[in-house]
Amino acid sequence: MNYTKQIQTFCLILLSGLTLNTAVSAESHVEAAKNGLKLPDNYKNWKVISQSHRIDNHTVRIILGNNIAVKAARTGDTHPWPNGSILGKMVWKQKIEEYWPTAIAPGKFVHAEFMFKNNKKYKGTGGWGYARWVGMKQKPYGKDRNFAQECVSCHTAVKDNDWVFTTPAIFP
Amino acid sequence: MNYTKQIQTFCLILLSGLTLNTAVSAESHVEAAKNGLKLPDNYKNWKVISQSHRIDNHTVRIILGNNIAVKAARTGDTHPWPNGSILGKMVWKQKIEEYWPTAIAPGKFVHAEFMFKNNKKYKGTGGWGYARWVGMKQKPYGKDRNFAQECVSCHTAVKDNDWVFTTPAIFP
Repeated sequence: MNYTKQIQTFCLILLSGLTLNTAVSAESHVEAAKNGLKLPDNYKNWKVISQSHRIDNHTVRIILGNNIAVKAARTGDTHPWPNGSILGKMVWKQKIEEYWPTAIAPGKFVHAEFMFKNNKKYKGTGGWGYARWVGMKQKPYGKDRNFAQECVSCHTAVKDNDWVFTTPAIFP
Repeated sequence: MNYTKQIQTFCLILLSGLTLNTAVSAESHVEAAKNGLKLPDNYKNWKVISQSHRIDNHTVRIILGNNIAVKAARTGDTHPWPNGSILGKMVWKQKIEEYWPTAIAPGKFVHAEFMFKNNKKYKGTGGWGYARWVGMKQKPYGKDRNFAQECVSCHTAVKDNDWVFTTPAIFP
């Protein structure tokens, strides 16, 4: 019984370390996209892949990934990205950083958009499923289940980069 | 015994979920800063707080935080930041994003710099300990243990913001 108790204690310690993740992972209240894709649980706690500042439309972005995508990004295994990868792009209107007037920083939240890699499931859209949730209320983007054709149309420019615009940032 | 086995299995499942975190958390090979501060384990897998593009010195930044800092950032509990918070700023030279020529993205890695909050321990430097590791080789910044006076000097401009330049990005 002592052994069992030790294991129980060990499990409790492990679980307590996971508290922050589970406490903020409830995305189930958000409506699914018109093509059926669901907002991934816990995406706000995903690890970072890169960032960008689009000077053409005055937005800034942080690109996050699930564990499969981050592992691929950090080991250079992105040609192609492995099945199961999910990339999440958080987009904000740019604003002047309040405490450093020569820095551009995230202002109003615009949308969160995702690419889900699965060669077979999303064969019709280049091996990626697309979805976007708009604004702080996270309303699914698009009028009907074919909305992703618009995504594919734009992403065709980077077909040779496995349909992905983002270059992973280099970490030490 | 069946009960014990069930618990063991449960622990194994939990542990396997932590594999990516532990596999990349070995920062112990990096030399400590001159003031004794150590590069935090696992910082590259921390959650994101914000990002910025400094148009004055042509760098881009991703600001990460440990669990205490991220919880504070996302609940607005940053005046002051709670003791135990660690903020990590990853800095890159800006470059044109290869696949979107009107976007600025991370180029060559410059340095990773950190602020460690502890009112008592770092009372002499405004309640924060400072450290920076330079380049891909992560060489500690500064000539002697007083290098942080330079950090404090610059951060004095944001003394009223608990010495922090970053405004946390707003997530849904």
